[in-house]
Amino acid sequence: MLSEKFNVRFYETDALAHVSNTVIAGWFESGREPIFRIFTPELDLKNWPLILASYKIDFLEQLFLGKPVEIRTYVARLGGSSFDTYQEVWQDGKKCASGTSTMVKFDYKTSKAVKLSDSERKLLNEHWIDTTN
Amino acid sequence: MLSEKFNVRFYETDALAHVSNTVIAGWFESGREPIFRIFTPELDLKNWPLILASYKIDFLEQLFLGKPVEIRTYVARLGGSSFDTYQEVWQDGKKCASGTSTMVKFDYKTSKAVKLSDSERKLLNEHWIDTTN
Amino acid sequence: MLSEKFNVRFYETDALAHVSNTVIAGWFESGREPIFRIFTPELDLKNWPLILASYKIDFLEQLFLGKPVEIRTYVARLGGSSFDTYQEVWQDGKKCASGTSTMVKFDYKTSKAVKLSDSERKLLNEHWIDTTN
Amino acid sequence: MLSEKFNVRFYETDALAHVSNTVIAGWFESGREPIFRIFTPELDLKNWPLILASYKIDFLEQLFLGKPVEIRTYVARLGGSSFDTYQEVWQDGKKCASGTSTMVKFDYKTSKAVKLSDSERKLLNEHWIDTTN
Repeated sequence: MLSEKFNVRFYETDALAHVSNTVIAGWFESGREPIFRIFTPELDLKNWPLILASYKIDFLEQLFLGKPVEIRTYVARLGGSSFDTYQEVWQDGKKCASGTSTMVKFDYKTSKAVKLSDSERKLLNEHWIDTTN
Repeated sequence: MLSEKFNVRFYETDALAHVSNTVIAGWFESGREPIFRIFTPELDLKNWPLILASYKIDFLEQLFLGKPVEIRTYVARLGGSSFDTYQEVWQDGKKCASGTSTMVKFDYKTSKAVKLSDSERKLLNEHWIDTTN
Repeated sequence: MLSEKFNVRFYETDALAHVSNTVIAGWFESGREPIFRIFTPELDLKNWPLILASYKIDFLEQLFLGKPVEIRTYVARLGGSSFDTYQEVWQDGKKCASGTSTMVKFDYKTSKAVKLSDSERKLLNEHWIDTTN
Repeated sequence: MLSEKFNVRFYETDALAHVSNTVIAGWFESGREPIFRIFTPELDLKNWPLILASYKIDFLEQLFLGKPVEIRTYVARLGGSSFDTYQEVWQDGKKCASGTSTMVKFDYKTSKAVKLSDSERKLLNEHWIDTTN
């Protein structure tokens, strides 16, 4: 499991006095940074190796300002050139949101998917979680 | 169908020189404003009647700065107290992203779901799309 | 004067039920797009010709969800390689915020300022406002 | 001095492959959270005691993805009911941006400024910096 902890920022709340649902996609992207570094340790923007195919987020509990949040990040599926991350947002002892994102190893110059290498698969596997049950 | 058109904002791009995937959840929220007004014509924040249960977004084509985008919004499912919107982002003649959001009619004071009224169902139905085929 | 009109987005509000002050810098950037196009009509990101040196924003009235806003953009100062834009946010007949941004014509490859050309100065001048009184 | 450290998030970059200038206002707001807590230790949103009057941000160096940033926050002016914070963004040993924000102690119910109490002045003074030279 990968873990990132930070405070809710005031501007991430909305007029319902809770965290805006639109913020969570960005938090999950932030939690995936160690996953990005498996493919590009220096975060080389000129040869970025991944593209996002989809994400789904389930909102379980409202999130609020004033208490730290933790983003937990796992790998939930490994395909030929794509994989899924499964992520959770925790606050105050509660799982408040969870989400699955599908990433594809991608060559932006040719706009084509690229096969995951053995070493990438091995490193992704270290963060494996079984979400099928 | 509900339609909203606007320009991509510079800050909505990211270092890959395309629109950040994290932006689309906010665009879809914006496209749902007429749906919100079915429940609260004056957007009454003190008695906000909806909560988001989940969203899923599929990214089909990259979106770029410099050409207008259109958000198309439909209603795709009607349950007892919840419903789904189906939405698309179009740019330059291409469907670039699509997404489904599940909303629940909700009483924030009691934290309970509330049944959709007949008039709400009727108004939601005006934006119906069949996404099952 | 350049003018852009749009709706406040729900996620642009914060827990005080008004528009977050952090949003206005982005709105002003959006309002400057026609200024950007004076320097790069096609918004060529690979040869972007401007860098922001500073901005100052004054908040005069709270901004709220539910009523459209207008961004008014003017040129307030023309230097050798830099210039200032002066901008206002209007909502419901009131000037709710105003701001001044200093932009520099800039070569990102050499990290150096570049002189404004005569034609750029002429086009910027078309949006002139005198803010000195 | 108050200090907050965090990573740049991918979505905070823009198409110029650096951090968007529109992000810094939010970072500074985040860095002021301990200042907010002087007025409302529990961050009580229903009785929020402050309103922002203005901010000015100077951009000194480009900020990039991949290296942590530090927000340094000071109090630079103390008036009757208002005060200024002075803040800096540091990355990789360089001061990349600085800014001054004017906050007013404010009663949202009456829309009126409120005098700073002695204890508030004392606590603000603990983060004093002299920016006049």
